[in-house]
Amino acid sequence: MTGAHGYSSQKDNYTKRLRRIEGQVRGIAKMIDEDKYCIDVLTQISAVNSALQSVALGLLDEHLSHCVSHAVAEGGDEADKKLAEASAAIARLVRS
Amino acid sequence: MTGAHGYSSQKDNYTKRLRRIEGQVRGIAKMIDEDKYCIDVLTQISAVNSALQSVALGLLDEHLSHCVSHAVAEGGDEADKKLAEASAAIARLVRS
Amino acid sequence: MTGAHGYSSQKDNYTKRLRRIEGQVRGIAKMIDEDKYCIDVLTQISAVNSALQSVALGLLDEHLSHCVSHAVAEGGDEADKKLAEASAAIARLVRS
Amino acid sequence: MTGAHGYSSQKDNYTKRLRRIEGQVRGIAKMIDEDKYCIDVLTQISAVNSALQSVALGLLDEHLSHCVSHAVAEGGDEADKKLAEASAAIARLVRS
Repeated sequence: MTGAHGYSSQKDNYTKRLRRIEGQVRGIAKMIDEDKYCIDVLTQISAVNSALQSVALGLLDEHLSHCVSHAVAEGGDEADKKLAEASAAIARLVRS
Repeated sequence: MTGAHGYSSQKDNYTKRLRRIEGQVRGIAKMIDEDKYCIDVLTQISAVNSALQSVALGLLDEHLSHCVSHAVAEGGDEADKKLAEASAAIARLVRS
Repeated sequence: MTGAHGYSSQKDNYTKRLRRIEGQVRGIAKMIDEDKYCIDVLTQISAVNSALQSVALGLLDEHLSHCVSHAVAEGGDEADKKLAEASAAIARLVRS
Repeated sequence: MTGAHGYSSQKDNYTKRLRRIEGQVRGIAKMIDEDKYCIDVLTQISAVNSALQSVALGLLDEHLSHCVSHAVAEGGDEADKKLAEASAAIARLVRS
């Protein structure tokens, strides 16, 4: 499925943040390859997890305000489906 | 600080997993660039977070069994320092 | 603020689960008082955290399907407020 | 298993914190029984989760510094067992 989404207006912001996270992950692989100290590697992993969580929370916020809200305003099965789908995504984030 | 660490015998395993995670993060940036559906993006982010957590827990396990255990066996300030450092890293992981 | 909420139809279910969680927390205090093994105490704490998360995710699901959906269907500032409030609650859950 | 543990010197501190958490959980059940606003209930649940995590991290820190360190200093199978057990408990905390 493609097309405009809740996050579309912020696309550049998100892709930029993900490029930076990608670089951080590459840096962690390099740290391990160069036998860097384990605790320093763990600190970097915690930082990447927090950065990914922020991206996820931003995407979710815009998804609720746009896709889910539009579906709810129209009502019917699509609204129920979108709400169930959002709740499942939230549960995955909380538990991951 | 460089040299042999707890994870050294598994270095290839970890760098391989991190290269795969790096590819997943690049894939997420591409999904956003191609306006993929928000929920699918969130599912990928949860998957990356879980994969990073597994890497972190593996590194931590080996850190406790090697670096921390060696310091504890020798005793003294270095043991206390290593234990405090490990606890702080665990707290960051639990809270991130 | 009082009155009917998303979770009202499930009130007995939630209060029952929370009474059980309350009993589990009391049990953990008793374990510590009786010098039970630390790892067993930690296992119980992880179980309580998971049980609380399930309650929170259930409440949030019903909040989105009822309060937030009603506000969105009516539109205006109240919809924006409810959406922002829900996103902030999700962020607290993900980070706690 | 009973006897002195890492946390023994702090027993009163921990049981006191857990009594307070028990009271918070009872308060959450009461909030639901009185139809309090869902978001306020979620805020309380996040607070309890954070408080439980702090207790768990404190217990774990003392467990590593005492039980695990003693086992490591003595060496042998018991050391390996204690380290594996601690890593499993950490993984449960990170994932719960």
